[in-house]
Amino acid sequence: MTITTITTADRRFDLTGGAGSDAVHQNIQYGYAVCELHTDAGITGVGLAFTLGGGNQLVCGAILELTKGLVGREIDELMADFGTVYRSLTDQPTYRWLGPHKGVVHLALAAITNACFDLWAKSRQVPLWKLLLDLSPEQVLHTLDLSYLEDELTREEALALLTDPLPTRAEREVVLQTGYRGYDTSVGWFQYSDEQVVDKTRQAMDRGFTALKLKVGSKDPARDLRRARLIRETAGDAATIMLDANQQWDVPTALRVCAELTDINPYWIEEPTHPDDVLGHQRIARAVAPFKIATGEHLPNKVLFKNFFQAGAMDFCQVDAVRVGGVSEFITVSLLAKKMGIPVVPHVGDMGQLHQHLVLFNHVALGHEALFLEHIPHLRDRFVHPATITRGRYEVPQVAGSTCDLLPEA
Amino acid sequence: MTITTITTADRRFDLTGGAGSDAVHQNIQYGYAVCELHTDAGITGVGLAFTLGGGNQLVCGAILELTKGLVGREIDELMADFGTVYRSLTDQPTYRWLGPHKGVVHLALAAITNACFDLWAKSRQVPLWKLLLDLSPEQVLHTLDLSYLEDELTREEALALLTDPLPTRAEREVVLQTGYRGYDTSVGWFQYSDEQVVDKTRQAMDRGFTALKLKVGSKDPARDLRRARLIRETAGDAATIMLDANQQWDVPTALRVCAELTDINPYWIEEPTHPDDVLGHQRIARAVAPFKIATGEHLPNKVLFKNFFQAGAMDFCQVDAVRVGGVSEFITVSLLAKKMGIPVVPHVGDMGQLHQHLVLFNHVALGHEALFLEHIPHLRDRFVHPATITRGRYEVPQVAGSTCDLLPEA
Repeated sequence: MTITTITTADRRFDLTGGAGSDAVHQNIQYGYAVCELHTDAGITGVGLAFTLGGGNQLVCGAILELTKGLVGREIDELMADFGTVYRSLTDQPTYRWLGPHKGVVHLALAAITNACFDLWAKSRQVPLWKLLLDLSPEQVLHTLDLSYLEDELTREEALALLTDPLPTRAEREVVLQTGYRGYDTSVGWFQYSDEQVVDKTRQAMDRGFTALKLKVGSKDPARDLRRARLIRETAGDAATIMLDANQQWDVPTALRVCAELTDINPYWIEEPTHPDDVLGHQRIARAVAPFKIATGEHLPNKVLFKNFFQAGAMDFCQVDAVRVGGVSEFITVSLLAKKMGIPVVPHVGDMGQLHQHLVLFNHVALGHEALFLEHIPHLRDRFVHPATITRGRYEVPQVAGSTCDLLPEA
Repeated sequence: MTITTITTADRRFDLTGGAGSDAVHQNIQYGYAVCELHTDAGITGVGLAFTLGGGNQLVCGAILELTKGLVGREIDELMADFGTVYRSLTDQPTYRWLGPHKGVVHLALAAITNACFDLWAKSRQVPLWKLLLDLSPEQVLHTLDLSYLEDELTREEALALLTDPLPTRAEREVVLQTGYRGYDTSVGWFQYSDEQVVDKTRQAMDRGFTALKLKVGSKDPARDLRRARLIRETAGDAATIMLDANQQWDVPTALRVCAELTDINPYWIEEPTHPDDVLGHQRIARAVAPFKIATGEHLPNKVLFKNFFQAGAMDFCQVDAVRVGGVSEFITVSLLAKKMGIPVVPHVGDMGQLHQHLVLFNHVALGHEALFLEHIPHLRDRFVHPATITRGRYEVPQVAGSTCDLLPEA
């Protein structure tokens, strides 16, 4: 199956009624820069990068530039050594100066990489999770670029991380029957009224969710505390509550407000300050311990993840395959996280469509604990095969590919 | 003077004969994404962002998107509170998701910001260095965005850093007569033969340079060592020699090769590994001490500079105003560096055209030591007012603006 033409799509979806709002963003539009790899078999590989709409056209422009060398490539042959392909794209010498490994060009790489993996799975007529689980450790390794990680993760160590869990894999495969637990981010958007937060929390718990997220980061910390107490009271002490500040605080403010918010026993506090601030997060993590810090949706690459892990600046790793350089870098970061003892709980810029596959791989193949996967329902009617949650768990997808195909524009 | 229309230019210049080559880049093209602010007075503010050509069109596209709100703005009024303008551009909620504060969108901000400062100086008919030196500490502060630095640099501390050096300013103003010392990067490009390195080193010293840079990072470390010894022997023990690896090494390799290269007593070793690797640089800096590490041309924003300073991961700060968010972020980083005791020696993606102004400001107004400024001669014939080096020193520019006007395309 050979790639014959490559197109992009600039897709933008308005959210209404406060959905998606946080301390930094109102009037939300979700956007996907879509890479489409068309083949001589009539099958199309589809890969997403997530944006908030604006600038999507720049990501699409970068996709077209970077994929010029992929036309004419046979998909199995391409993926057999995808780590080298990935590195040649990410270290393309001139585009590298627009990063390296960050921003518009790296988001383009996410869409390209994800389209390649989607096409690979479709070409084998299996869901992506099955494709990945059926690869040998060496085959997985060949899809990765481990450069600049050598001080923490050698090739030999990566291979061992893929090989060592094999004997116990069957124990973890039970998740392929039960499905992967979800957590609900859509109960506590920033602009929701107190009444909405209470209502939506109750509804979510009725639907089987036991883990919920609330947006904080108000100019008035008293509002944060009031809402946090409200959701805790509504959900009960047994519920798992996460708080998300979306980078709203400087470090001194984060230290001050987090100390108050720990009163409600949050499972984690997310993005307390600027995403690049390794040592700021380290300081906050030390101050709030034993409470935990989560971050990652805005970390652009494996090198910054390495730094956060080394610094003890991140207790939960929220790497997002539609925000870093795609499935390949997601797996690389997941390997590094496994070695360094950090759980991976992806952010879902893809609304879980792609990550429902990747968390199954992380659990079954790498032995990462099966915690839960974020669930955001707002684009369900935009996907051909929307992720489905039943009794609080993601159903295991059975269709071929990575379930990222979008319905045509109305 | 009011901004009436805004245009961009995608300018690319091929270099020949190995000029500009390093361990990562061959067949060099230098590129500028140019922001042009046209006014009702017929004067145009010109700002540059530096690339290696590829993707320049993406940066130009982002400039046009981000500048939509600047049409109709009066330049003095705009610059009186430019810190707020800057922050509203850099934290534009949807474009922020393409970073934040990095990559294509942040490079666009560099060009926009630099065009604003250029226009401001032209509107007052003074060179940029004089405009900046004539501002009061409060006026300078109003051009800056100090967000996310609060843990290391409060607004009060920034004001003190601008105010405290005022009484001793006259002592430092001598540089306005003598000019600012340059160092020559063009003697030791990666692809130059040994004979070329020797010849160009001799020529540079004949022209008054006493500080020179050599590109290292060869696949064969013996080549690096041979060339380093060659330039040391040619230039003599009194010369200042810098070595630049352009991110070629992983951390273990950097540790190994740097240990050998210190034999030639380098003034610094530059970009030993991935630019985002705060703790990798910290480890290398500790290992090579008392030798020094320089980096910064690929650090996208003030938050990462803060981390490098905090970690002791950077002995020389090579912030580049055409690579971070322009003059405003350059001054912000310079203030932070001053507070934390780190010398600023800019990388010159602008070929020194803009930085010849900024180092005068850093020395005279902030009290930074006047070390030297990188000199790269390859685009001299492309600028309307090319920076001029006489007896190893940059002549102090006397024309209005930031001397970044490019000649029209041939």
